Amino acid sequence: MFTSISVVGAGRVGQAIAARLGERLPTRAVGRDLDIGEADLVVVCVPDAVIPAVAREIAPGPWIAHTSGACRLSALEPHEHRFSFHPLQTFQAELGPEQLDGAWAAISAENEDALEAARELAGLLGVTPFELDDDERPLYHAAAHFASSFLVTLHDVAAELMDTVGAPPEALEPLMRRTIENGFRHTGPLVRGDWKTIESHVEAIGAKRPDLLPLYRALADAEAALLGARA
Amino acid sequence: MFTSISVVGAGRVGQAIAARLGERLPTRAVGRDLDIGEADLVVVCVPDAVIPAVAREIAPGPWIAHTSGACRLSALEPHEHRFSFHPLQTFQAELGPEQLDGAWAAISAENEDALEAARELAGLLGVTPFELDDDERPLYHAAAHFASSFLVTLHDVAAELMDTVGAPPEALEPLMRRTIENGFRHTGPLVRGDWKTIESHVEAIGAKRPDLLPLYRALADAEAALLGARA
Repeated sequence: MFTSISVVGAGRVGQAIAARLGERLPTRAVGRDLDIGEADLVVVCVPDAVIPAVAREIAPGPWIAHTSGACRLSALEPHEHRFSFHPLQTFQAELGPEQLDGAWAAISAENEDALEAARELAGLLGVTPFELDDDERPLYHAAAHFASSFLVTLHDVAAELMDTVGAPPEALEPLMRRTIENGFRHTGPLVRGDWKTIESHVEAIGAKRPDLLPLYRALADAEAALLGARA
Repeated sequence: MFTSISVVGAGRVGQAIAARLGERLPTRAVGRDLDIGEADLVVVCVPDAVIPAVAREIAPGPWIAHTSGACRLSALEPHEHRFSFHPLQTFQAELGPEQLDGAWAAISAENEDALEAARELAGLLGVTPFELDDDERPLYHAAAHFASSFLVTLHDVAAELMDTVGAPPEALEPLMRRTIENGFRHTGPLVRGDWKTIESHVEAIGAKRPDLLPLYRALADAEAALLGARA
């Protein structure tokens, strides 16, 4: 379907996408001049706040897509041949297109043609697409935030506690990796109904890091609710 | 140093430890009769609440250790040749001793001889030991709970939100794995100071899953505090 693609934005996402597309078909990395050349698809990989301005600068005609997790399709006004394509992955500038391997991507579109175009892009990038209602984007993006940013938060809090007791924070990583590899099975004191241990955590955190008590309690409540829902 | 080891308890931890030790030297899996044979080390891998009773049943003489993360050394009364040895890992019954590979273990002991014995056990199991003050055990165990149980909680909450928007929960796993592989770097809206996106999360969660608002807020506050501490 697509014969030539232009990628606007050379941040972490834009670089990975341009590198992978460049392995498959003519791909142009578009700079500040926004000269998209002969592209029949323009992929806009710029900060959310800048997407509307970039979209308005590009003459209607080719397909246009943004890669934001949070932005609506309306950010691409006045284009009608449009869709959004959010790779559900975290990217680093030092790594390459292999960062897309195994990833999924949320696609939103307003008609079957646009969905087909989004699926075509997914195929070129080697990621697995899933449809997302444009209106559900905020809740979807919150889910991604839980899974990624808050995973970092959880790690950092645990690492601070390890530091506090003189234990090496790097010892947490094999535990966290295995927790994922084991398919996120619930283990630990709450599974055993061992409230005595939970109380000892609350007491110790209250004594040394009272600022973390609301977080501990909110997580323990959520875990108890999840376990209750499964029991 | 050790020539023969007995392992009490055939749960997930006991099985993995007995299997690994059995590759190295004579190892006996001890049953309910608590016949430890000629062992010069007894590793007690039973539920926390049962450790004191098991310890009291074993005649003093050999080294004795428990593998609990939460229990104190005093749980091993009346033994004097004692230490604790907590593999900071999550185990499954279906897997074998390879579960110990790459793991760390918290060791607590009251004198240099006991620390030496704990390091010897770490060497036999192929894990990296680190010393932990017995009094710091509750806070250390809370750190492990953040890193493991609460990681599952985080995943499950994100998976529920994905379900709510009709997106596949399994799409979260590559994101979570990469977040760890990328060294827990902070990314996302809070890093960019994008409070508009955070507000859109709060609004969406408030509309569809108000029960999760306290958790979202506690995590966002913790993330903001971590980012502030680094700025």
